[in-house]
Amino acid sequence: MGRRGQPAAQIATPHESALRTELSELLRLFYLNGWVSGTGGGICARLDGDHFLLAPTAVHKERVKPEDFFVVGLDDGRPLQRPADPTLRPSECNAIFRAIMRHRGAGAVMHSHALSGVLAADLASGGALPIQGFEMLKGIRGCSNRDTHLVPVVENAEREFQVAGAVERAICDPRYARAFAVLARDHGAYIWGQDVSETKRHAEVYHFLFEGVWARGVRRDRVA
Amino acid sequence: MGRRGQPAAQIATPHESALRTELSELLRLFYLNGWVSGTGGGICARLDGDHFLLAPTAVHKERVKPEDFFVVGLDDGRPLQRPADPTLRPSECNAIFRAIMRHRGAGAVMHSHALSGVLAADLASGGALPIQGFEMLKGIRGCSNRDTHLVPVVENAEREFQVAGAVERAICDPRYARAFAVLARDHGAYIWGQDVSETKRHAEVYHFLFEGVWARGVRRDRVA
Amino acid sequence: MGRRGQPAAQIATPHESALRTELSELLRLFYLNGWVSGTGGGICARLDGDHFLLAPTAVHKERVKPEDFFVVGLDDGRPLQRPADPTLRPSECNAIFRAIMRHRGAGAVMHSHALSGVLAADLASGGALPIQGFEMLKGIRGCSNRDTHLVPVVENAEREFQVAGAVERAICDPRYARAFAVLARDHGAYIWGQDVSETKRHAEVYHFLFEGVWARGVRRDRVA
Amino acid sequence: MGRRGQPAAQIATPHESALRTELSELLRLFYLNGWVSGTGGGICARLDGDHFLLAPTAVHKERVKPEDFFVVGLDDGRPLQRPADPTLRPSECNAIFRAIMRHRGAGAVMHSHALSGVLAADLASGGALPIQGFEMLKGIRGCSNRDTHLVPVVENAEREFQVAGAVERAICDPRYARAFAVLARDHGAYIWGQDVSETKRHAEVYHFLFEGVWARGVRRDRVA
Repeated sequence: MGRRGQPAAQIATPHESALRTELSELLRLFYLNGWVSGTGGGICARLDGDHFLLAPTAVHKERVKPEDFFVVGLDDGRPLQRPADPTLRPSECNAIFRAIMRHRGAGAVMHSHALSGVLAADLASGGALPIQGFEMLKGIRGCSNRDTHLVPVVENAEREFQVAGAVERAICDPRYARAFAVLARDHGAYIWGQDVSETKRHAEVYHFLFEGVWARGVRRDRVA
Repeated sequence: MGRRGQPAAQIATPHESALRTELSELLRLFYLNGWVSGTGGGICARLDGDHFLLAPTAVHKERVKPEDFFVVGLDDGRPLQRPADPTLRPSECNAIFRAIMRHRGAGAVMHSHALSGVLAADLASGGALPIQGFEMLKGIRGCSNRDTHLVPVVENAEREFQVAGAVERAICDPRYARAFAVLARDHGAYIWGQDVSETKRHAEVYHFLFEGVWARGVRRDRVA
Repeated sequence: MGRRGQPAAQIATPHESALRTELSELLRLFYLNGWVSGTGGGICARLDGDHFLLAPTAVHKERVKPEDFFVVGLDDGRPLQRPADPTLRPSECNAIFRAIMRHRGAGAVMHSHALSGVLAADLASGGALPIQGFEMLKGIRGCSNRDTHLVPVVENAEREFQVAGAVERAICDPRYARAFAVLARDHGAYIWGQDVSETKRHAEVYHFLFEGVWARGVRRDRVA
Repeated sequence: MGRRGQPAAQIATPHESALRTELSELLRLFYLNGWVSGTGGGICARLDGDHFLLAPTAVHKERVKPEDFFVVGLDDGRPLQRPADPTLRPSECNAIFRAIMRHRGAGAVMHSHALSGVLAADLASGGALPIQGFEMLKGIRGCSNRDTHLVPVVENAEREFQVAGAVERAICDPRYARAFAVLARDHGAYIWGQDVSETKRHAEVYHFLFEGVWARGVRRDRVA
C-alpha cells in the first residue's frame, strides 16, 4: 500500500489532516476534563476501511500534535506509518481499539482514565453497571430515557492488552449490544461511536452518567 | 413577511447579528459549565414580537455558530428561516420555549442538562423544590432572600415535546408565578428571563441554588 | 477636588488606570472560580487616602470593564466620578467596604458569593467559624499554622447595607482582630488585604479553607 | 563559576531559557488545577549536576515569569544568581527540594498545596497512606496496578524548613523507596520525577490518586 516509512506530511489527504487535527484537539479537551491526566487514556479514529489513526502512548495527551499519530492497519494492528519523532510508540490500547472498531463498527474510540468511571464501576454488580432514570441516556444512540442501560464492567489486569480479551467478550455479549462503553474496574472506560463526533458525544454523555450514578449512589447508601 | 428561504447573512439586522453572536457565546459558556454537554440543552431569544432565534438540536452546543440559528415564528413554531447548513434541525425545545415566551413574557430561555438540576429535583416533594436560606435568591427578579422560592418540578417524558404540556401547566400555575425556572425530573431545567442578560443571570443563580440545595440536603440527611 | 463629573479617561493617572485594569481582571478570575456568579459579589480598592474605586452593582461581574468603576469618597461614600455608562450604579457593598477600609486599614476588599463560604458558615457556632489544622492558614497575614483562626459569622439581612452594622461590629471586635474575612450566613464572605495583591491571596486562602473545613466537617459528622 | 550577580538574560543557555519557560508554564497549570493557590506551593528543576532553578516564595505562582527563578547551588542551597526583581526571595522549599534531588536523584520537584493532598493525608495511619486498586498507579515509575503503594506522611511544622528533617528521613526510608511523593499532614505534597516531564506526570497521577482515595474512603466509611 505504499505508506510504510513515508513521512505523514507528504501523503496526508485533506481528510487525514483534518482528522489528525480533530483528534489532537479532542485530547486537549479530554485533558481539561480530567479524563486523560498523567499521560493516561488515548484515542483512535478510522481513516478508511483498512487503516486508523492511533495516538502515542506514555506522553502527555494534551501535548499530542497532529503529526504524532500512527497510521495502523485495522486487521493486524501493525503501524504502517510512524510519526517523525522516533521516541513515540503506539498506544497500548491498540488491541482493544481494533476489537471495538471491528466488532462494533466504531469509527472512533476514546479511552478515559476519569475518576468518575472508576467510582461508577465500584457500584456495579454482576459484571455490569445498570444506568436508569436519566434523560441523558438519550444521548446514547438508540437509547431511550426509559431504558435500563447496561454498561459491561470487566476486571482490570496488569497490562492493557491483557484487558483486551475481557473487553472483546463484553462487546460481543448480546446483553451489552446497546452499550457504546465498557468500564474496566479501577481503571476507566472505553467509549466509542460511529465517527469522531458521536464518540465525543458519547464520551460526554457517559461521563455525565458516571458522575450522576455516583452522586445518587452515595446519597442512596446514606439515606438507606 | 418575506424571510422564508432567504440566507441569514443577507438580511440580518445589526440587532439580529449581535443576538446570534451572543447566543453562540452563551452556549460555549454553558458548555464550559457542564450545562449542555453531550449535545444536550439549548437556547432561544426573541428577535421581535413575532419571531425568535432557536438553536439547532443534536449538535455539540459549544460549536454552534451565529449563522446556525433558526428564525422561528412565535405563534406557530414554524421555521421561517433556516441555516445554510441543511443538516441542522430546530431544537426539540421549540414548543416549551414558545410556551414560556408567550405565557411568561420571556425574552430568552435556556435549557440546561446540568447534573446539579437533576440532583436538586431528587430532593423535591409535592411537585416543587422549595429553596430558602440563600442570599442568591435575590438574583431572581422579584425574589427576596427571606422568601421560600418554589421551583416547579415536572415528570420527565420520552420526548421533549411531551414534557411541554406539563411545563405549560407549571408556568401557568399561580403557585409558581414567581419562578423563572422549571425542573424536569431526571432531565434538567428550563430557565428564562426578560432578555438574554437576565436569562444568563437567572441561569447562574438557579444552578448555584441547585448545587447549594444538594450540598446542604446531603449533609442534612447525614446529620439527621 | 475637581473630579466630580469628569470623564475617567481624561484624568486617570497611570496608577489609577492600572488599578482599574487589575480590578476588572480580578473580577474575571473570581467569576471563573464561581465566586461572583449571577451578578453577585463585588470589589473595591483604594486610590489614595481619600478615594477608592468601586465596582458597579447588578451587572455580570466578569464583563466589568476598567472604565466601569466609580470613584467614591472614603468618608461619605458618595460617588465623585461616575462611569460614562449612565445605567451603572455603585455596588451595594459600599458601606461595608468603607467600614473595612476605615476600621481595618484595608487597601482592597472583595465580596464573594461562593457556595463554599455559605456552606462553611453552616458549620459555625457562637458567631464564629474556627479554622485550624491547615498549613494554608499561613497565607493569612500574621497567622501561624498552629493558630485556631476565628472568622466572624454575621447573620444575613434583606439588604446588603443592613448587614453593614453587623459586619462593622465584627471587624471592630477584638476577638476577630486577626481575621481578614467576615462570613455572612447564607450569603458569602467579605475578604480584604492591605492591597490588591494581598486581597487576592487572602481570597484564595480563605476559599481554600472554607472548602477544606466543609470537606472535613462532612466526613467528621459521618464518622462520628 | 562566575554566575554570581550576573543578570539572567545575559548568560542563560537555550536549555536554561527553555527550562525557565517550562517551569513558569507549569506553575500556571498547577494554579488552574488549584494546587498552588494563595501563593502556596512551588517548583524547582535541575540545570546541571551542581545547580537548579528555584521559584520565588510568597508570590502569586501563576504570575511567576521565566526570569523570576533563582539559580541555586545544589550542595549548599545558596542563590548564585538572583532575579532582577530585588523583592523576590527564594522558595522556603529550598532545603526539602535539595534533599529530594540529592537523595532521590530527582530532576525536578513540585510542592502542592492541593486540598486533595490534605484530605488524603487524613486517611493515613502509621505514617503512610497506602494506595491500591487504581490503574493510575502505573503512572508512577516502577509501580504496577497490583501494588499497594505507600506514600509517607510526615507531620507538619510551623516553618517549611522544619519539615525538611522529617521529609529527609521519609525519602531515605527503605519502606518508601518506590514513592515519588511525600505528604505533609494538613499541608500538601512534595512530588518529583527524573525530569520536568515525569514530575508533571507524577503530579497529575498522585493528585488523581489523592482524590480517588478520598472519594472511596468517604463512601467506605459511610457504607461500613
